[in-house]
Amino acid sequence: MPEIEIVLVGALYQGNVGYTARAMKNFGFTRLVLVDACEIGDEARIAASHATDVLEHARRCSFEQVHRESSLTIATTGAVNMTVCKPMRMPYYTPREVREIVSDLGGRVSILFGRENWGLNNEEVEQCDIVCTIPAAAEYPILNLSHAVAIVCYELANLSRGTYPLASHQEMDCLYAHLNDFLDRIEHPSFKRRRTMLLLRRILGRTKLTTREVSTLHGLLRRTEWHIARGEERAEECMAP
Amino acid sequence: MPEIEIVLVGALYQGNVGYTARAMKNFGFTRLVLVDACEIGDEARIAASHATDVLEHARRCSFEQVHRESSLTIATTGAVNMTVCKPMRMPYYTPREVREIVSDLGGRVSILFGRENWGLNNEEVEQCDIVCTIPAAAEYPILNLSHAVAIVCYELANLSRGTYPLASHQEMDCLYAHLNDFLDRIEHPSFKRRRTMLLLRRILGRTKLTTREVSTLHGLLRRTEWHIARGEERAEECMAP
Repeated sequence: MPEIEIVLVGALYQGNVGYTARAMKNFGFTRLVLVDACEIGDEARIAASHATDVLEHARRCSFEQVHRESSLTIATTGAVNMTVCKPMRMPYYTPREVREIVSDLGGRVSILFGRENWGLNNEEVEQCDIVCTIPAAAEYPILNLSHAVAIVCYELANLSRGTYPLASHQEMDCLYAHLNDFLDRIEHPSFKRRRTMLLLRRILGRTKLTTREVSTLHGLLRRTEWHIARGEERAEECMAP
Repeated sequence: MPEIEIVLVGALYQGNVGYTARAMKNFGFTRLVLVDACEIGDEARIAASHATDVLEHARRCSFEQVHRESSLTIATTGAVNMTVCKPMRMPYYTPREVREIVSDLGGRVSILFGRENWGLNNEEVEQCDIVCTIPAAAEYPILNLSHAVAIVCYELANLSRGTYPLASHQEMDCLYAHLNDFLDRIEHPSFKRRRTMLLLRRILGRTKLTTREVSTLHGLLRRTEWHIARGEERAEECMAP
């Protein structure tokens, strides 16, 4: 992945700059660039919350400088009149497509977001290499600035969710064997057995159990078996002379 | 797709409720539910911008009512300590995985978002069917409330970007034929031709030209051909006795 830079062009409200810094840091991005943006004060810092470091390291520079220093510039535009073929804003890519496009690039990729009330103007869009548009509802397609940044960062970060230990096939097979023994224990009729085991396998198969969940289910079965056994023993004791 | 409902549990700040309404409408969702949330006033309406209708139709109800009326309830939790296996918050799904899970469901699916400062508490998470976690940077994984809603809505909307007319294979073949003729016209040596045409095909192949772009390129080639021809005619006129 290249170095990703978020560029706010002409941002009007410091709150939005602060929320942008926070959304960036939430997804592991730290390079914020301000082009003709408002002053940054307490309101921005409050909105940034634990991302004031991103705000403080924000670079102020000109539109031209961004272009000079980046290997690819991406203009984000609102999903307005997307069916009208305006060559300047065409073709456009979704954030997910942008991720594919930039993923094997080196250097620096700058993603430009325009003013809250107007977006990027035509001249600014013209100078960018690629246009990115977040697909949105036709009835109200204009996203708040920092929310648009959050969605683009979310897609570009493409963070894995981490992994948790799903039960292995062997562990599942042990569970099915235990269930089959359990069915014996409760004298489940053998002529129904194949179908019932299949049904249990279908239910448990699609739930994708974790190792821990499998272990808890074994525990419940064992505890049930123990209670059945105890009941039987007591019954035998009573019957004994 | 089922009917999707966004439930804010214990929201503290009206601005966040307003931004949530806006983010929902941006992605075509309108059912907002407030459980123990703050009062809604001007601050919320300003943040909602053109989504005040979503705010006004917001339903206030209890946590129990949400559960009673939904076929599936999804708790969203922050990506904190995700490597620690807490059974209550495991397994968790990314917004994209949630989309897969709910896409073939009917009825109503409620997605619950907790308080700004604390999220959903353990008891609330326990009562939900599924846990959804937005993958985020370990250094600062806590998203602002309305930004989390925006990302979940973005994934669940799964709006297509619409289509624009990409050039067909026939149109591309015409362009390649035109380029080949053009190379003849500029006396491009035949021993280099195959490789040069391959290079042009590789460049243009990966750019995925629109019909309009192909047509403009044809125009540029024709104009160039015309200028070459005019130069040659003039030269002939000069040479003529």
